Amino acid sequence: MASVESEQQRKALALAAHDASGRVTPIRISRRDTRDDDVAIKILYCGICHSDLHTIKNDWRNAIYPVVAGHEITGLVTDVGKNVSRFKVGDRVGVGCMVNTCQSCESCKDGFENFCSKIVYTYNSRDRDGTVTYGGYSDMVVVNQRFVVLFPDGMPLDGGAPLLCAGITVYTPMKYHGLNEPGKSVGVIGLGGLGHVAVKFAKAFGMRVTVISTSPEKEEEAMEKLGAEAFVVSTDPNQMKSVMGTMHGIINTASASMSMYPYLGLLKPQGKMILLGLPVKPLEISAFALVGGGKTLAGSSMGSVGDTQEMIDFAAEHGVTADIELVGAEDVDWAMERLAKGEVRYRFVIDVGNTLVAA
Amino acid sequence: MASVESEQQRKALALAAHDASGRVTPIRISRRDTRDDDVAIKILYCGICHSDLHTIKNDWRNAIYPVVAGHEITGLVTDVGKNVSRFKVGDRVGVGCMVNTCQSCESCKDGFENFCSKIVYTYNSRDRDGTVTYGGYSDMVVVNQRFVVLFPDGMPLDGGAPLLCAGITVYTPMKYHGLNEPGKSVGVIGLGGLGHVAVKFAKAFGMRVTVISTSPEKEEEAMEKLGAEAFVVSTDPNQMKSVMGTMHGIINTASASMSMYPYLGLLKPQGKMILLGLPVKPLEISAFALVGGGKTLAGSSMGSVGDTQEMIDFAAEHGVTADIELVGAEDVDWAMERLAKGEVRYRFVIDVGNTLVAA
Repeated sequence: MASVESEQQRKALALAAHDASGRVTPIRISRRDTRDDDVAIKILYCGICHSDLHTIKNDWRNAIYPVVAGHEITGLVTDVGKNVSRFKVGDRVGVGCMVNTCQSCESCKDGFENFCSKIVYTYNSRDRDGTVTYGGYSDMVVVNQRFVVLFPDGMPLDGGAPLLCAGITVYTPMKYHGLNEPGKSVGVIGLGGLGHVAVKFAKAFGMRVTVISTSPEKEEEAMEKLGAEAFVVSTDPNQMKSVMGTMHGIINTASASMSMYPYLGLLKPQGKMILLGLPVKPLEISAFALVGGGKTLAGSSMGSVGDTQEMIDFAAEHGVTADIELVGAEDVDWAMERLAKGEVRYRFVIDVGNTLVAA
Repeated sequence: MASVESEQQRKALALAAHDASGRVTPIRISRRDTRDDDVAIKILYCGICHSDLHTIKNDWRNAIYPVVAGHEITGLVTDVGKNVSRFKVGDRVGVGCMVNTCQSCESCKDGFENFCSKIVYTYNSRDRDGTVTYGGYSDMVVVNQRFVVLFPDGMPLDGGAPLLCAGITVYTPMKYHGLNEPGKSVGVIGLGGLGHVAVKFAKAFGMRVTVISTSPEKEEEAMEKLGAEAFVVSTDPNQMKSVMGTMHGIINTASASMSMYPYLGLLKPQGKMILLGLPVKPLEISAFALVGGGKTLAGSSMGSVGDTQEMIDFAAEHGVTADIELVGAEDVDWAMERLAKGEVRYRFVIDVGNTLVAA
């Protein structure tokens, strides 16, 4: 078994994707003791995000092998540093996409440290001391307290794990673009890991939801299980026409390149289209589609730790969790293959606590 | 002299562009008496907006000849209907881009009647009764009180006239996108009729302003006369690079098709690019340029009457007016030709009161 050093993990056993083959092999990670501001966490669950797959496969040409992926981490606090007062041993906690930022730039000072240019991601990133960060496909993680979220009673650690990435990614733009007001109408493009959570938050906010999908077979799920008021097949011009000008906002989770024009037409005046996906080809936008109706096309990425805590508390209060399929540590390869084929409804979560066994 | 009927003007003498030649010929317009909610206005000044030129030339294929253009109208109240309490004879007033809306749709109810789908524009538009509206290149206008703005003491009727279109067009997105906060940094693309007013409002809000222009010769004007803190020639990659990531927002007044990519790079995280111009070719936008930094690309068009009143009051308080060149009614043709060549700094205003003489 290989062994690596990390600022962030201590004597952890990790699942690791060593190379572009994407195959999982266990490695051992060691690091120094819990520091004054650190929280040590025994990992119980970790969601599998689509970006884990991209990173492991080196799709973005930035993989630092061995990659230990996972940024939807939940577990129990096992140790805290002497400056830590917000958490105590035994607390149920989570860690999302980032584990360090500069704390001094404008974004950090304004409470939007997710936009810090010196952000250190939870995995496949270099921390300040140069060591590589390793994520939640592992049995433990040690994180600065500023980047730890407390899970309230009633928020499960398994179904709640994906909220730390998928949840905050949809919650943040809904909050900051006013798409969280009862009675307003929101469209959700794409019913996957992000989309199904967006529908749940929108319903919890008291909004009217239209799911826009290329897959007619998702209609029943969208309307009967998730409670969307309407479902539109985006490839059917008549269905699209029937909802023109009806939406205050659209959460666009699609990663495919698409013409924005028909979708912007679904918005009411002053409506907002939020882009969360990253299609490789440039989008074509007519200025007329934005200017005349005072419409907005906005990107959004993750969210701050403060907003993540707010989101988890809101989700606990309103019973919002991700729909998950639990997999064992031994099944990560198989889960990744199914994820690549789009077969998961809607998020795989690794049952780390019960299945990751020390070699 | 030709004669036409209008819901909106009464026994008015107007300058009119009869056909696509753009030549001005006087016509006489008649309509019925002032109704209960009407305000009759003797026009003293009317700004020449670039959209007047587009309409007169039928660039947008929607001209209803004879066109009497002009939606930057100022003058004195000469008569009011019995329901009018906000205005009295002798008041200094203005009329902007619209003269009627439905008053019952969501946009109207929310105070954003500028997005009403039944909006009646000040000229070249059909009012509810089917008559055509005629604008401010005329000696009088009769308008429903809801669409009249009171000019406070100290706001000149000549330099204030262009604020009714150019002013509100830049003020509205600055207000609604948070680009009106002291200490924030804003870029202004294009130093023309809209751009120079945007710089003045930004300075009045206490912001730091960078003018971004293709014309190096405008630097002195931008910095010394208008008080911008910086000036960047957009065709110089080094100058553009020097201001990367420095702006909270950009007011983009350019009408030319351009790649948004380098301009979006000038924004800080969560920065906002506001499109006001209408380039004919689609814009190419990389999703990466918006998503990673949580950036916004938003269109904006005109503004509500309520915001127009607020803007005029704010402008009066802070001494904001447009830089204008007064022209006589007989010089409108000549002014239009210079406008087409981009020779005006920065707005022509017709001195209607002193130069439009009854035939």
